[in-house]
Amino acid sequence: MYKAPVEEIAFTLKHVAGLAPALEGGHLGDLTDDLVDAILSEAGRFASEEVAPLGAIGDTQGARLVDGKVKMPDGWPALYKAWAEGGWNSLTASPEFGGQGLPHMLHVAALEMWNSGSMAFAIGPTLTIGAIEALTAHGSDHLKATYLPKMVSGEWMGSMNLTEPHAGSDLGVMKTRAERRDDGTYRLFGQKIFITYGEHDFTDNIVHLVLARLPDAPAGTRGISLFLVPKFLVNEDGSLGARNDAYCHSIEHKLGIHGSPTCTMIYGDGRFGEEPGAIGWLVGEENRGLACMFTMMNNARLAVGMQGVAIAEAATQKAIAYAKERTQGKAPGWQGSGMSPIIEHPDVARMLLTMKVLTQGARAITYACAHAVDMSHGEEATHWSERASLLTPIAKSFATDAGVDVSSLGVQVHGGMGFIEETGAARLYRDARIAPIYEGTNGIQAIDLVTRKLPLSDGAHVRGFIAELREIAAKASAANAPALGETGARLEASIADLEAATEWLLATLAEGKQAEALAGATPYQRLFGLVLTGAYLAKGALADGGDGRNAERAALCRFAAENVIGETAALRDRVMTGAASLAAARVALG
Amino acid sequence: MYKAPVEEIAFTLKHVAGLAPALEGGHLGDLTDDLVDAILSEAGRFASEEVAPLGAIGDTQGARLVDGKVKMPDGWPALYKAWAEGGWNSLTASPEFGGQGLPHMLHVAALEMWNSGSMAFAIGPTLTIGAIEALTAHGSDHLKATYLPKMVSGEWMGSMNLTEPHAGSDLGVMKTRAERRDDGTYRLFGQKIFITYGEHDFTDNIVHLVLARLPDAPAGTRGISLFLVPKFLVNEDGSLGARNDAYCHSIEHKLGIHGSPTCTMIYGDGRFGEEPGAIGWLVGEENRGLACMFTMMNNARLAVGMQGVAIAEAATQKAIAYAKERTQGKAPGWQGSGMSPIIEHPDVARMLLTMKVLTQGARAITYACAHAVDMSHGEEATHWSERASLLTPIAKSFATDAGVDVSSLGVQVHGGMGFIEETGAARLYRDARIAPIYEGTNGIQAIDLVTRKLPLSDGAHVRGFIAELREIAAKASAANAPALGETGARLEASIADLEAATEWLLATLAEGKQAEALAGATPYQRLFGLVLTGAYLAKGALADGGDGRNAERAALCRFAAENVIGETAALRDRVMTGAASLAAARVALG
Repeated sequence: MYKAPVEEIAFTLKHVAGLAPALEGGHLGDLTDDLVDAILSEAGRFASEEVAPLGAIGDTQGARLVDGKVKMPDGWPALYKAWAEGGWNSLTASPEFGGQGLPHMLHVAALEMWNSGSMAFAIGPTLTIGAIEALTAHGSDHLKATYLPKMVSGEWMGSMNLTEPHAGSDLGVMKTRAERRDDGTYRLFGQKIFITYGEHDFTDNIVHLVLARLPDAPAGTRGISLFLVPKFLVNEDGSLGARNDAYCHSIEHKLGIHGSPTCTMIYGDGRFGEEPGAIGWLVGEENRGLACMFTMMNNARLAVGMQGVAIAEAATQKAIAYAKERTQGKAPGWQGSGMSPIIEHPDVARMLLTMKVLTQGARAITYACAHAVDMSHGEEATHWSERASLLTPIAKSFATDAGVDVSSLGVQVHGGMGFIEETGAARLYRDARIAPIYEGTNGIQAIDLVTRKLPLSDGAHVRGFIAELREIAAKASAANAPALGETGARLEASIADLEAATEWLLATLAEGKQAEALAGATPYQRLFGLVLTGAYLAKGALADGGDGRNAERAALCRFAAENVIGETAALRDRVMTGAASLAAARVALG
Repeated sequence: MYKAPVEEIAFTLKHVAGLAPALEGGHLGDLTDDLVDAILSEAGRFASEEVAPLGAIGDTQGARLVDGKVKMPDGWPALYKAWAEGGWNSLTASPEFGGQGLPHMLHVAALEMWNSGSMAFAIGPTLTIGAIEALTAHGSDHLKATYLPKMVSGEWMGSMNLTEPHAGSDLGVMKTRAERRDDGTYRLFGQKIFITYGEHDFTDNIVHLVLARLPDAPAGTRGISLFLVPKFLVNEDGSLGARNDAYCHSIEHKLGIHGSPTCTMIYGDGRFGEEPGAIGWLVGEENRGLACMFTMMNNARLAVGMQGVAIAEAATQKAIAYAKERTQGKAPGWQGSGMSPIIEHPDVARMLLTMKVLTQGARAITYACAHAVDMSHGEEATHWSERASLLTPIAKSFATDAGVDVSSLGVQVHGGMGFIEETGAARLYRDARIAPIYEGTNGIQAIDLVTRKLPLSDGAHVRGFIAELREIAAKASAANAPALGETGARLEASIADLEAATEWLLATLAEGKQAEALAGATPYQRLFGLVLTGAYLAKGALADGGDGRNAERAALCRFAAENVIGETAALRDRVMTGAASLAAARVALG
């Protein structure tokens, strides 16, 4: 059973991602080291003891649509209530609406733990928190006063309604329409698909944030507005009023996260209310809906990245435990009696160590991204905001790919038992697979990274970041520690690969060769993630966590350098020389 | 819906794997090119039109245990009947027992197509064919006469009973016991798990081949005997007699291949018969059971490799079809009106081309292995037998890893729809995951490759093979064709990586450093597979299939060289320098 790795999370936050210097520098208000530890510890306890035990039933029972209502898995409504009462929904929310105003880093760390316990459970609250962010940033005072306190307390949940059958990655072509009414409200008509937690029995009311198009809106993404559409209208006194004309038509039968209801939502077909039309209120300005969404889109992407880390961590723990217990054959050098635990076999150790490296690399990248988000509200706002922007697509893609790869290795380590659902390794493998897809596919992240993030400050930001990474590699080389093996040299070589690929992409973009640059976007994104994995593990190995685990960190860092990140040279070649053969080979796709 | 790629299969068989020269050289009896085409064409029709349409119901309905009997999915018993009546069970079986005595290559090609249609269906007959092989090679005349004609005709099916709860990869510790009886029969007692098609309603009788231990047997793998245990005893006249004391206790709830019943089999607990004990007959000699199994184990491994190819092919077809139909966004350079088909986006094209390369590489490797099996019965038997031995672990591991990787990319290409079960991409992803595990995990394949296959003929065989690959690279370089891009140079570099890693492993093994060699076994196996992929695609591109597709093959081969196989350098480093950091990092596993 999953046990939250609270110490490892705290170490990564403080000594790799930047929390310790930020606390020392007074950048995070009156937050103290002790408070951080207390929050992490309690979040870990809740995730391990309350959430994780209900993960399996969420998968086998799933969310079910019964008579038009979504019934959540047994025990989950009570779990949600306990979670909300624990104040976990309000961690980062503004104190003005009952939140605790804590840094994003802590939220992200807690999020990792909920998701390790049950990704299907954690995704619901995550979306509510995203809705809270959007409403806090763009809602009118009336909307905020009406909805935010109850959303922050967890009494009501939210949902995000973007996708339509023909509008997924490209939202510009969406068809849901909104009509203005004289009283300042709007009536919405249309269908949304893939709406996570669009309907459930956790809360009495659900606050849908819905993208739609006004009749006179410009075509494309500049003609989309954001609306708040509650499941039940809210009376002046805050009590629930009439049912709004918005409902869940069906839920999807999915590969994984079965406990998370993925709804097709119907707005305004007249099932409820006196006349057809779901009553909505504008959030932000007309036709600026996508901009409103973008304020929380980066955080949502980071949250999905955390799901990758979470699945990878859970899969790694499970596989290590199994590999220590299961005996089979005799490993070379095995001196014990009988068969060896399979962890003694070099190939099994290789799988487990690779899982561990990818998990910790992904964790470090996502936490560093969260740290940049926190720092972007203070001094050097531009620098940190650019850092958060640059890291977001890498964090989302690298961590979610790690979730898939690590959970796949987890199944493999379990052998035949891994294929049996009751073992639980297969559930992680199924759950993990959505994360590289939603909140912008990893291919879209790569396009974002190359075309919008590399050019920040005319390339100065990414160049500065690479220089920082070089400092880590130089320190690893200078340490001259046998425990680090070839870490310094390997890391320097990989950073050189990153630099070469980066300069090539910047030059190619500057020449307007969009297609050539995009052909290498995914290999580049992977290359960046591998370099960061090597660099952050080295940073951790060079720091002293004061917990006597330095030798362990040095050994894992060396394994990463010598056994995991070496693909950077091939990825560099793919970026810099792969476009022509990609274009030419289209003929083979018929 | 899957359409069998008959032309591509025929091309690979003939011009890459060696069928054309073997036919010309008269190595395959009176088999003709026309007959090959006719068989492939009819097998393809059956797979596309009969098997594939029943794949989805096999998954959703699955095999069900009802009142002690296994009920197969709707339509499957009739499908099996049609399949057996089509003579597909008897392709490679000896004419003495009603078989057609055709080369293994044709069986393997047909197997690919059945598995693309439904892996859960195809695995059953595959195991029967394995049982036929074992019985043909090792059974007494009486057993052969009694069982083989009905197994070859498909009237009865077979099953292979090896695994026990504590004996999976390591069969030496199995506990199922067999007692001698005065009449020359045996009584078996024990439990077997993970028995594929151990029970079903396809046929009246099921012929179980069961490994068990005699009371006075030596410990370990040298004390295991093989027994034939029919579900129903067979009367002198060939009619069915009493129920034997062997039955299916339960079936597993698995990640994939739901239509394939995975049974826990109980032998000899007294449920059936007058006294407890399942009645069995010895196959081969006492205590030589594992040797009997090994005669068919290589073919079974190759058959599982085919499952990887099959899933990869089905996933690739599905993804290409979707990517041509689905429109979203505007790809760079897109001139059409509205959104582009997503296949126009460079990142999507990269995924599809990578899928195609891995599929065709895996196909070529497995077919080349089957060709070696066929040739090992003629002249130069040692050479071809060693080639088959060397290629088997690579074929099994590379192709099954390709099945997982390609089906994962297939889900990704489908975006959100890929996560919805009804789309079918997720089923392939789930089904694929068992293939790297069963019939010897891919880690076991790597151990086999490094410790038993590289040393064949003191390393001369693998060195000779590498020299053959160099010839292909040299031809690619000499062709000097712009369409091949850097193929020759890239391939030569990758072959140099393979050679360096091979020599290092041979030297390390010679020094008795088993642990160091095994630490690099999996990277080495992957390295070998990538080199073969590049080489076989080049061989195909340099051949003329006479079908006007040369340009297409050259372009895909170039893409493989410049965008897929470049990891060989990193893999070589992992083999040659990775062992020390792997050993040191064990401390990080707790």
